Amino acid sequence: MKRRDADDTRRRIFEAATAEFGAHGIAGARIDRIAAAAGANKQLIYAYFGNKRELFDTVVSGHLARLLDEAPFDPTDLPAHAASIFDHYIRHPELARLGAWHALDPAEAGHRIAALESVIKARTAAVKHAQRAGKISDTIPAADLLAMVANLASMWAVPTQEWSPPGGITPAQARRHRAALLEAVRRLVEPA
Amino acid sequence: MKRRDADDTRRRIFEAATAEFGAHGIAGARIDRIAAAAGANKQLIYAYFGNKRELFDTVVSGHLARLLDEAPFDPTDLPAHAASIFDHYIRHPELARLGAWHALDPAEAGHRIAALESVIKARTAAVKHAQRAGKISDTIPAADLLAMVANLASMWAVPTQEWSPPGGITPAQARRHRAALLEAVRRLVEPA
Repeated sequence: MKRRDADDTRRRIFEAATAEFGAHGIAGARIDRIAAAAGANKQLIYAYFGNKRELFDTVVSGHLARLLDEAPFDPTDLPAHAASIFDHYIRHPELARLGAWHALDPAEAGHRIAALESVIKARTAAVKHAQRAGKISDTIPAADLLAMVANLASMWAVPTQEWSPPGGITPAQARRHRAALLEAVRRLVEPA
Repeated sequence: MKRRDADDTRRRIFEAATAEFGAHGIAGARIDRIAAAAGANKQLIYAYFGNKRELFDTVVSGHLARLLDEAPFDPTDLPAHAASIFDHYIRHPELARLGAWHALDPAEAGHRIAALESVIKARTAAVKHAQRAGKISDTIPAADLLAMVANLASMWAVPTQEWSPPGGITPAQARRHRAALLEAVRRLVEPA
């Protein structure tokens, strides 16, 4: 197979796997359906990506890399960072859905995704540094502050339906949620 | 069947359904397994609770009723309210897990649980009232503020594993998360 064809096949598998894992989770995902949707051979999926869990890891890591690329992180401006995560999730809710399945599935309990772990570690250190330098408040410990910002920024990507009107979140509501998020994170970091 | 026996059977079905839905979600739950775990007849489950979705509704509504009973709500003291939700979830993570499945499952998209919807509606009105009376800040709209508090209070009940050390959250970490939560919610509602 030519290099360009192989890249194209990998991309189609990645997209089909994103849709399958996003809808059905890890336990519920079927490699057969991913193969059919991608128009690819099942054996080729195993050859390219390994087993189902390895494929899930690759898919999560790929979406995480895109988030890191699109949502700039500046520990001294966490409101802007939160807004950029929020904007990313409005366009691409996939990563938030995949993360939620990953947290829920009992079979995932001991499974830690290396790419996610290393981002959290680096960012916690950066927030701690900004706190020590007095750039942002330190009344909330760095790790908790970062987890709160990530949570508040992603909560409308996989919303519990009772929190929104039937039919889902409209663009006008998304703007209001975004403004509320900016204000909330500003309050979390402002000097006491 | 005597009344007391029937109550006991219902209780066993409720508990078995909680475990089954919590581990496998709605799509993945099997009525056969619930029947086996409860030592009850499958037909009896349908007779008592209706179909799988109705059983799920009853289970969520039952756990919600317990949360409402255990976690007092005072719109003028949202930090204490958040801490009481947090404490409840440390003891009973079931409702947080059930809610997460409910939000994730594509088949649940149009399905709104009445008990949950009415609590959100009543509490949003109460928060709005407290804001208008000047008891708490109104720079974050009531509905967003309530959703943020609920989210922050439950985020450690179904945590993404990479946010915590391997082995899960220790009692000492839970105390630190609780203190951080109190401080965060205090910041969200304090007059500007």
